[in-house]
Amino acid sequence: MSLVTAYAAPAEGAPLEKIEIARRELGPHDVLIDIAFAGICHSDIHTVRGDWGPQRYPLAPGHEIAGTVAAVGAEVTRHAVGDRVGVGCLVDSCGECRACARGAQQYCERGAIGTYGAIDRDGTVTQGGYSQQVVVTEGFVVRIPEALPLDAAAPLLCAGITTFSPLRHWNVTRGSRVAVVGLGGLGHMAVQIAHALGAEVTVLSQSLRKKDDGLRLGADHYLATSDPATFRDNRRSFDLILNTVSAPIPLNDYLSLLDTDGTLVCVGAPPEPLSFDVSRVISGRRSVAGSNIGGIPETQEMLDFCAEHGIAAQIEVIPASAINEAYERVLAGDVRFRFVIDIATLAG
Amino acid sequence: MSLVTAYAAPAEGAPLEKIEIARRELGPHDVLIDIAFAGICHSDIHTVRGDWGPQRYPLAPGHEIAGTVAAVGAEVTRHAVGDRVGVGCLVDSCGECRACARGAQQYCERGAIGTYGAIDRDGTVTQGGYSQQVVVTEGFVVRIPEALPLDAAAPLLCAGITTFSPLRHWNVTRGSRVAVVGLGGLGHMAVQIAHALGAEVTVLSQSLRKKDDGLRLGADHYLATSDPATFRDNRRSFDLILNTVSAPIPLNDYLSLLDTDGTLVCVGAPPEPLSFDVSRVISGRRSVAGSNIGGIPETQEMLDFCAEHGIAAQIEVIPASAINEAYERVLAGDVRFRFVIDIATLAG
Repeated sequence: MSLVTAYAAPAEGAPLEKIEIARRELGPHDVLIDIAFAGICHSDIHTVRGDWGPQRYPLAPGHEIAGTVAAVGAEVTRHAVGDRVGVGCLVDSCGECRACARGAQQYCERGAIGTYGAIDRDGTVTQGGYSQQVVVTEGFVVRIPEALPLDAAAPLLCAGITTFSPLRHWNVTRGSRVAVVGLGGLGHMAVQIAHALGAEVTVLSQSLRKKDDGLRLGADHYLATSDPATFRDNRRSFDLILNTVSAPIPLNDYLSLLDTDGTLVCVGAPPEPLSFDVSRVISGRRSVAGSNIGGIPETQEMLDFCAEHGIAAQIEVIPASAINEAYERVLAGDVRFRFVIDIATLAG
Repeated sequence: MSLVTAYAAPAEGAPLEKIEIARRELGPHDVLIDIAFAGICHSDIHTVRGDWGPQRYPLAPGHEIAGTVAAVGAEVTRHAVGDRVGVGCLVDSCGECRACARGAQQYCERGAIGTYGAIDRDGTVTQGGYSQQVVVTEGFVVRIPEALPLDAAAPLLCAGITTFSPLRHWNVTRGSRVAVVGLGGLGHMAVQIAHALGAEVTVLSQSLRKKDDGLRLGADHYLATSDPATFRDNRRSFDLILNTVSAPIPLNDYLSLLDTDGTLVCVGAPPEPLSFDVSRVISGRRSVAGSNIGGIPETQEMLDFCAEHGIAAQIEVIPASAINEAYERVLAGDVRFRFVIDIATLAG
């Protein structure tokens, strides 16, 4: 066991502060990663503040991790010292159920182990990427291609895979008509990935405030959901609607934008239930679905895809001392489009 | 134009009575059908009673029609006098949109023409199968294979295709784990079809009252939804849940029965909206979908499939004079599993 410096919440609702956390000794299949950058995901904020239930404190969040391999266990074959690597939302799973067997670890039937705030195999609570180092079993460590800078790659490990996975699962391809609801951390990745897949991309955002950004990122159209004309004039216009917003939406209105056989996929869960008229799905064989991050092979595929297409997150790099301020700005929607912590600033 | 005898509702909520209705002269692509049997669908009752909105009266319902061809228009090529044929829920569509082009007339973008209560191309109101004859354009007339008796085939035109279409669309095949919610007119067809497709079939019914029927029709398991153990002990147990019940269901409970990538398909729309927690779909990439009857090529495929597998509706044949009494029994759930009107009894 070794101690490393981290930024963690000492208690529910308390500002994050610098502390020392323990990392386990390297097991035979473990990889020790020197973390270079960690993205700030909205989930980090919800989790440490207890919005999603009570947590064990102190808790260091962070599941958008990019760095280099510092050491490997005796039996590690996939990674070598010096490799540029990433870790996302999961650090382990049962490895044996049907979901794991097909590389869909995020749906592990016994419950995958989250990168922070989860009970690890050894009974300790996992601690996330706002820290100098992390030890992760090699199967949950992915390669970051040379073409991707580590800072802009970090958010791909959550925001990238969370949007890539459903876009691929629902077969978005050349000519697909895709709407992305919300142009935040997730949405700005969805637009780029859908565009690179050849889709005709429309952003559905509350206002036209970020329209220039959306078009620059690859959107073909940008519509304000606050304008009733958006729903009136775009009926049956989309094959897939990817909802990246975790607030409740008027589902019936969005379903009417879907063409026959269209699907609305939610990747964020509002605390309130959503309701809809069944006739809206029956009348066009429409579906309402959900998608949870992505599996490990798929995460690697996503990183390779982003490298090939020159896609990365649009980021603002901050020192660790600015984390609490960044949280407030995320909650206020004042970020384009992801804060990334420069972990080097944790030292000293 | 010719007059034929029919059973029709003279006004909203009024009992059906015998009247004369007009059938158009045979156009070049039209088929005149001597109707032998017409099934009584729950929709018939809802429609003539105005539950789904105001109607034009008198209105003869019936969209589960089986009979023989009495005459054909000059350019008809698909059917000949004497052929055993059926007509389902649709009698026409635009024929030009993308949905029609791929044989999915039920999703016609300009709106398909329903078999009764709809405005036909000539501006008249369509009248359904509780009548001696009907004139239908040949593209909406399907062949009833010799192996199927006309009386037991009639309900296939709605109850059969409404369940066959989603079972096929969502790729039910050998080993699929399918749950059918409700063992009524639709459900008893779904069980037989899913069983013939090779699925492991479970009926989810309010009580175990029809358990023997369900098992006899091909169900492997029969569970009561009134028993909390059903939901407690069968989590992640199904790939597809086909909900044939038009009353509201507690969607969250049913979603927890779906395995990863499972889909719950509704084929009946309750008047009330359904609500669910988005986390239930996200956590297993589950979907809630709807499906509306089926297209014409698919309806033919269903009839051929049923003939090949010895599947038909379980029916109780009644004379036309018993229609109003049958309606009350349908509403009371007192039918196993479909009433079929012997149209010969309309004469005299």
